[in-house]
Order: sequence, then C-alpha cells, then structure tokens
Amino acid sequence: MFAMHPIGFVRCGYRDAAEIPRGLGASHQAEGVLEIESALAAGLTDIEGFSHLFVIWAFDRSKSVELLGTPPTDDRPHGVFATRSPYRPNPIGLTVVELLRRDGNRLHVRGIDMLDATPILDVKPYLSGVAPEKLRRGWLEDAENRARKGGTRG
Amino acid sequence: MFAMHPIGFVRCGYRDAAEIPRGLGASHQAEGVLEIESALAAGLTDIEGFSHLFVIWAFDRSKSVELLGTPPTDDRPHGVFATRSPYRPNPIGLTVVELLRRDGNRLHVRGIDMLDATPILDVKPYLSGVAPEKLRRGWLEDAENRARKGGTRG
Repeated sequence: MFAMHPIGFVRCGYRDAAEIPRGLGASHQAEGVLEIESALAAGLTDIEGFSHLFVIWAFDRSKSVELLGTPPTDDRPHGVFATRSPYRPNPIGLTVVELLRRDGNRLHVRGIDMLDATPILDVKPYLSGVAPEKLRRGWLEDAENRARKGGTRG
Repeated sequence: MFAMHPIGFVRCGYRDAAEIPRGLGASHQAEGVLEIESALAAGLTDIEGFSHLFVIWAFDRSKSVELLGTPPTDDRPHGVFATRSPYRPNPIGLTVVELLRRDGNRLHVRGIDMLDATPILDVKPYLSGVAPEKLRRGWLEDAENRARKGGTRG
C-alpha cells in the first residue's frame, strides 16, 4: 500500500464535472492554476523552461470502481484501463497541460480538465510524444469512424 | 491522504537500477510484461487496440525526497518536478510503453524502464502527443546542446 499526499491543488472555474467538455472532439482550453505547497516550491526550480507538463492528480470525488464502463465517447463498454474513466482501482488522473507561466509556487496552465480543488499528486516535464504514424487508438478510432459516418455524435 | 494499491507488477530483466539506461539519448527498448491482478482482468477489455499505453507505477525502492537534484542528463541541479527523479514527494513513476500483445491478464510491452517487481498503480491508453514544434524541453535542451558542443557526455 502506498500513501499519497497532495503536493498542491488545482484552482480553476470547474465546480461540477458536467461543466468539463467530454466526448469526441472535446477540446480542453480552460486555464487554471496548479497551486503547489509553498514548502515544496524548491521542487519547481527550472520548470518554467518546459512548455508542457504531465499533471498526476487524484479523482477525489470518485468513490466507486467500474471495471467495464461506457465512456462518453462511445455507445459500448470498454475496460477501465482502456479508458480515462474516473472509476478506477486507484483513482489517479493524468492530464497534459501547457505551462503559460510560473508565479512562485503557482503554475498558470492551459488545458485543465479537472475540478476546482482537485488534489495534485505529482508534476513532471512532458518530454516527447509518440510519432502519429505509429499510434493506434483502438476503440476510440472505431467510435470516431462510426460517429463520422452516422453524423449524430460529436 | 490517498491509499494506493498495486493493480499488478512489472516482470522484466532489470534487477538493479544501474542496469537501466539513463541520461541523454537513453533508449528504452527493453521488453517486459505488465502482469495485472487476475481479479482486474475485465478492466483490460479492448486494451489490445491501443499501440501505446501510459503506465503509472510506484518507485517502491526510493525512500527519500530531494526537492533539488542533479539528474544523470546534466551537471547542474534542477527541481524534482522539472525532472523524472525517483526522489519525489509522492513516489510516482510514469512511462509510455508500446503494447506488443495481450495474453489474458499479461500485457507484453516494449519500453520498460522500471525494475522487476515494480508495483503498477494504473494503466491508461496513450491517445495523443503534443506537436514537436510546440514543445520546449527546458534545461534538458540546454544540457543536450552543451553535450553536443563538448562532445564529452552522452
């Protein structure tokens, strides 16, 4: 068992999960602040040189686990490890954000998809991606193709 | 406080951190298995459609925290949140692996950079990256440029 403590909290305008864009083509442009505990501010040294960060956070308002669930992006169920569902065995969320600027222990970022007051567990530099031509996106690609043909979901 | 439990364990050939390639230009091509608890196997449904996965895991053999440290890729210190150091306030590791095949509750992957028996906390589909022309890599870019000029580090 591992005991994780918040290193800080998200400050943003989302008060309810229904406000956060979800589903196919959802674009996360919301800005917000990652407020890191001031005792840990030394850990942010040189972070301002990175354009993008991984934010690892806790789904602190999800209490249940669903091994199979139907995501907002599809009309059929998939395994929780093949989705970003909040109903995970360990309630860990992962978001890539763009770092706009650092103001002491406050990181101003774009790309927030968490609720206000979400506990942050870790922040890491985002270093590189997988080349698009090497990436397969499984059921999500299938769902996108169906949506494109049907034209009813978006 | 959040209590996290392993959803499974890494099976691979690395027994000692010194065996894992680190530093500038380190290439992680090692293959291994993510062995997920059989009680959670339903959560893997449809995961085989994805070419790449995020693996969130625990640095279970790192006990200390270093807010400022000098990574193997540089000769000067940086904040822990601007590096992938194991000495983090929450000992969380993050690795992108290529999914080679699924065999029941065993995911055969390439790109292992964890030790054998590392506890896995979560697995998520890797969906997209940041366009290379939009990515800045801070001190790591500087260190690479110095290494290129000096020709002494690699």
